Amino acid sequence: MIDHELLRRRAQELLPDDVFGYFDGGSGAEVTLAREARAWDDVLLEPRVLRDVSGATVATSLLGQPVASPVLVAPMAAQRLAHPSGEVGVAVAARDSGSLMVLSMRSSTRVEDVGQVGPFWQQLYVLQDRGVTDEVVERATAAGALALVVTVDTPVVAGKRVGLPSALPPLGIVPALDRRVVTDERLQQARDVGPRDLERLAETSGLPVVAKGVLSPAAARDCVAAGASAVVVSTHGGRQLDGVVPTPLALPAVADAVGGEVEVYVDGGVRTGSHVLKALALGAQAVLVGRPVLWALATGGPDGVRVLLDDLTAQALEALVLSGCRSCADVGPDLVHASRR
Amino acid sequence: MIDHELLRRRAQELLPDDVFGYFDGGSGAEVTLAREARAWDDVLLEPRVLRDVSGATVATSLLGQPVASPVLVAPMAAQRLAHPSGEVGVAVAARDSGSLMVLSMRSSTRVEDVGQVGPFWQQLYVLQDRGVTDEVVERATAAGALALVVTVDTPVVAGKRVGLPSALPPLGIVPALDRRVVTDERLQQARDVGPRDLERLAETSGLPVVAKGVLSPAAARDCVAAGASAVVVSTHGGRQLDGVVPTPLALPAVADAVGGEVEVYVDGGVRTGSHVLKALALGAQAVLVGRPVLWALATGGPDGVRVLLDDLTAQALEALVLSGCRSCADVGPDLVHASRR
Amino acid sequence: MIDHELLRRRAQELLPDDVFGYFDGGSGAEVTLAREARAWDDVLLEPRVLRDVSGATVATSLLGQPVASPVLVAPMAAQRLAHPSGEVGVAVAARDSGSLMVLSMRSSTRVEDVGQVGPFWQQLYVLQDRGVTDEVVERATAAGALALVVTVDTPVVAGKRVGLPSALPPLGIVPALDRRVVTDERLQQARDVGPRDLERLAETSGLPVVAKGVLSPAAARDCVAAGASAVVVSTHGGRQLDGVVPTPLALPAVADAVGGEVEVYVDGGVRTGSHVLKALALGAQAVLVGRPVLWALATGGPDGVRVLLDDLTAQALEALVLSGCRSCADVGPDLVHASRR
Amino acid sequence: MIDHELLRRRAQELLPDDVFGYFDGGSGAEVTLAREARAWDDVLLEPRVLRDVSGATVATSLLGQPVASPVLVAPMAAQRLAHPSGEVGVAVAARDSGSLMVLSMRSSTRVEDVGQVGPFWQQLYVLQDRGVTDEVVERATAAGALALVVTVDTPVVAGKRVGLPSALPPLGIVPALDRRVVTDERLQQARDVGPRDLERLAETSGLPVVAKGVLSPAAARDCVAAGASAVVVSTHGGRQLDGVVPTPLALPAVADAVGGEVEVYVDGGVRTGSHVLKALALGAQAVLVGRPVLWALATGGPDGVRVLLDDLTAQALEALVLSGCRSCADVGPDLVHASRR
Repeated sequence: MIDHELLRRRAQELLPDDVFGYFDGGSGAEVTLAREARAWDDVLLEPRVLRDVSGATVATSLLGQPVASPVLVAPMAAQRLAHPSGEVGVAVAARDSGSLMVLSMRSSTRVEDVGQVGPFWQQLYVLQDRGVTDEVVERATAAGALALVVTVDTPVVAGKRVGLPSALPPLGIVPALDRRVVTDERLQQARDVGPRDLERLAETSGLPVVAKGVLSPAAARDCVAAGASAVVVSTHGGRQLDGVVPTPLALPAVADAVGGEVEVYVDGGVRTGSHVLKALALGAQAVLVGRPVLWALATGGPDGVRVLLDDLTAQALEALVLSGCRSCADVGPDLVHASRR
Repeated sequence: MIDHELLRRRAQELLPDDVFGYFDGGSGAEVTLAREARAWDDVLLEPRVLRDVSGATVATSLLGQPVASPVLVAPMAAQRLAHPSGEVGVAVAARDSGSLMVLSMRSSTRVEDVGQVGPFWQQLYVLQDRGVTDEVVERATAAGALALVVTVDTPVVAGKRVGLPSALPPLGIVPALDRRVVTDERLQQARDVGPRDLERLAETSGLPVVAKGVLSPAAARDCVAAGASAVVVSTHGGRQLDGVVPTPLALPAVADAVGGEVEVYVDGGVRTGSHVLKALALGAQAVLVGRPVLWALATGGPDGVRVLLDDLTAQALEALVLSGCRSCADVGPDLVHASRR
Repeated sequence: MIDHELLRRRAQELLPDDVFGYFDGGSGAEVTLAREARAWDDVLLEPRVLRDVSGATVATSLLGQPVASPVLVAPMAAQRLAHPSGEVGVAVAARDSGSLMVLSMRSSTRVEDVGQVGPFWQQLYVLQDRGVTDEVVERATAAGALALVVTVDTPVVAGKRVGLPSALPPLGIVPALDRRVVTDERLQQARDVGPRDLERLAETSGLPVVAKGVLSPAAARDCVAAGASAVVVSTHGGRQLDGVVPTPLALPAVADAVGGEVEVYVDGGVRTGSHVLKALALGAQAVLVGRPVLWALATGGPDGVRVLLDDLTAQALEALVLSGCRSCADVGPDLVHASRR
Repeated sequence: MIDHELLRRRAQELLPDDVFGYFDGGSGAEVTLAREARAWDDVLLEPRVLRDVSGATVATSLLGQPVASPVLVAPMAAQRLAHPSGEVGVAVAARDSGSLMVLSMRSSTRVEDVGQVGPFWQQLYVLQDRGVTDEVVERATAAGALALVVTVDTPVVAGKRVGLPSALPPLGIVPALDRRVVTDERLQQARDVGPRDLERLAETSGLPVVAKGVLSPAAARDCVAAGASAVVVSTHGGRQLDGVVPTPLALPAVADAVGGEVEVYVDGGVRTGSHVLKALALGAQAVLVGRPVLWALATGGPDGVRVLLDDLTAQALEALVLSGCRSCADVGPDLVHASRR
């Protein structure tokens, strides 16, 4: 079992201070970030016993796409800051471990280069210039994106303790983005992103749309009403509105509200197989893992990321088996102690 | 984003020990004070998504007075101890940042000098000698006070770990007060302050009366029955009865009880934009910020205070936008997770 | 306001290690003791406002005996270990401050010497030899005891981390006890103490009986049924069964159960005026303070104890006034936030 | 009263790092293990008073077997790693203190050697090769086992921070197991262990079957339906599924569900007499103690274990008496404060 804290400290030694700080930090007073670490530990499991778990597997399917495990790679900007292989390195690792990468729109690699590795999901911000957004969607679709993950918690980018690193490389998804993120207002997040944007993205792309960044049943219902095929219960890694509800606390009500209609994913401090099992038991079909992937990339390149993802998948399988389940679908709310169910 | 703890430590270096201790400390065993720091962080937010937040603003109006943000300056005694510019310096900063200053009755500056800077609210203790109280009200009204903020939690001044600083300057609001606070019994807080005092102050001054220092629905109702136009949910900065309920816990029931009739404000450990948003979501129309203003004054003079207030306003606006709201009025209890709603 | 922790550390410097450890420690793993420190702080107050508190007083009457404050001195063994003046010194301080001393049966001073100082309450263990118990009652009654405080939580003395100090002085209440506590089995606590013992003590002495050491409504009801005129909600200073409910949590249900019939007192970590007010608000008529009296005795002799008791009384009065009350009887459950009422 | 933490640190000094780490550590991120320490302390007791506790005893009977106390020795592998006397040493201590040893199937001593010391209970994993399991049962039965304790929480062995120690001695229960634990797949835990296995073990052995490792009413009911005569509420010492509910939280619902039909035991961090009393009050008939036995064995050999067990029994008796009870059967849920009952 990989020690994520050790991985983080090694990455801290290897990366320039501003790069590490940019990846590691959160918004505001980092209240959300600090709470994340304990929130999953506070969920209490009650395993089933005397179940035949021969041939148990965590392989599952998400939006129709088979995956070796419900552990996905969260979208993160500018991965070439962590390692020269950048987004391509992560894509290779995700493919080789049977996971799925969500490619950030603020990628430091051309989407076509990532698409050549294999299928992926494309994260999107709706930008002030909708035409640029459409360009990104077009190129991502052409490059093999299987879904659009539209971030809905970022009408503006929240202030961080540590700002953008000085070495931020040119961004490569679309020519229009082939520059530093913050220089052109048209390329910034739209403040008026609304249901119509989600609908339009689904229509024009023909791809399923995943709404990332809901923390309440109401928010989830709004996304589903706007055509989302899935929602991600997310705090944006503690990098947007500070002081929000931890995702394990938000997840059950969201799953109750929309889990019958669409898929539900969750991120925010998922670090162990036990956490993955808890996410499934609270109503998610998959989890997204962020910073640990960057630390693995920084310290071990693509191989490091693959080892990390394989370890998480192995841990998730062990937890599944130990809980008396044979598949992700088998996991239910009865595995969670009543104090949190 | 300004680091309030850093600001506090710099002020500690600059100020004499007894002055810093007087401002920094609380009453009793400082249980209230210690709890304040975490109470706002414990409130959990659930932002709305897919809302058009173009043109969002935190500008609002309080008792009919327009303000650039719902962040006011709490009344604090003897500000010339923190910086030679004293209350005038704070008033200038509050005016320039579009905020509103609540001037302490225990001010170290003549009220006429503060009034020349711009409109303000006058804090009052009902004194044993009601005639002196009336003098203060008259002079404050003449100097441009727009409201009287009557402190209702101080029938006596609670004992503090650190007493009054030796360098306490002459106080200047009224001639009668032009001496050290504690020397004349008639100038001390009245133990028999009652509903009739609030009624009389409203009648004689013609100004709206804000009752500062309620922590329960019953207390709030008593103040409203006595003619208050607003109440402040307050622990007096942890400087009066020690061991009271933290204000974020007290606020919702107070807002339920009287929020339909009068305005509700809150103070006590508000330090970030996220805290301000939480206060609004729990039912307040404004927050009062105390000690950070003193630290900013001590370390940066009037400019330091303006930068602090501007930063809090900017943070509050960012939090508002990230929660999917366009105005303070738009903020509602649905933004708070059910565990605290 | 006296810093109790500072007092404790000074006492630690002055007293031999085994004496300090004997007084300071608790039973078992000291779980109860450790929790006591925070349990009162966790109760949250909601003061009343706009009340006339002129002439407020904490003077009250307990079992018909007027006292200057509801803060009593808890029974503690062998006080000459702390200071040569021992129980007489504490009795003088209690008398001079208008408090009341509960004299331990394991006193290191003859009861007649304590009785000469003034009225007191006599703590009793029912011993295996009931005849010796009767002797103690007789002598205490003759010496002026106004009530018998019968400890009901000690069928055996719990093991402590620190045992009896080597310098334990001869004990003086009755001739039979004029030797080291543990040497004679007949002088040890009776394992079969029952309702009949309480009834008999009340009958034979003609004094009111206070049952000390209840933590549940059922236990309180049993004591009242056996004739108790008052009960003390107590953990025995964390020195008997370890792991029990903190007294502030136990008190409200006990007060609900028997508070209409008998007086209810409480001890366990009461250290400030705010704590005293909380005790009254949760249903007690008085509090008992233990270890701080010993630390004051060790560091300042009788004068030290008087200063301590006066300080607690002054703090209690300040808290009463700040809560908007005029007398102990005026304090009610509405002063406690609903989370604990 | 023995200081378990001190015992642990002494054992750490004496044992090779890998041996200590193997015994001391837990699975996953050791979340369960860390929580265990406080979970029993969080249960709050309310003793009865005025009860005659003369002649109180903690002697009881488990599955018809009289024991001097409800404190049993939990099954633990390879005890010769802790001390040359190994399982025989522990068996002697358990017999001499009137306790009962649950012998691990992963014992480092031949079952016949343990059986010569006296009666014991045999822990079992259902292995992939059911024939080997049957051999173990046959030999254990012949050696004098009075019950089979079948572990139901281990379809696979969870990954640990510290793996198997290099010096792991040959294992001795059955010839087939006379080798390192992990080398032969047929000797590993069966993933398809089900109700039929429990039924079959009860039938073929004629012994009562205890199902060890339930944490929910549903799991307990499944075991009882499969013929279990008792269940053990257990986290496997924090060594199987990480992140599960602490046993004191799980116990009451399990006792409610099956306590009327079968005996219920509990383990997981039981370290004091107060903990034992809490376990009984929450519905258990006995507790199992694990690691402290190993530390006592490592530091003091068989004598050390006997002293430890005697101390726990004495503590349990003291707690029983202090709670106003005369026997284990006398202990009831009324001893637990309503917040946890």
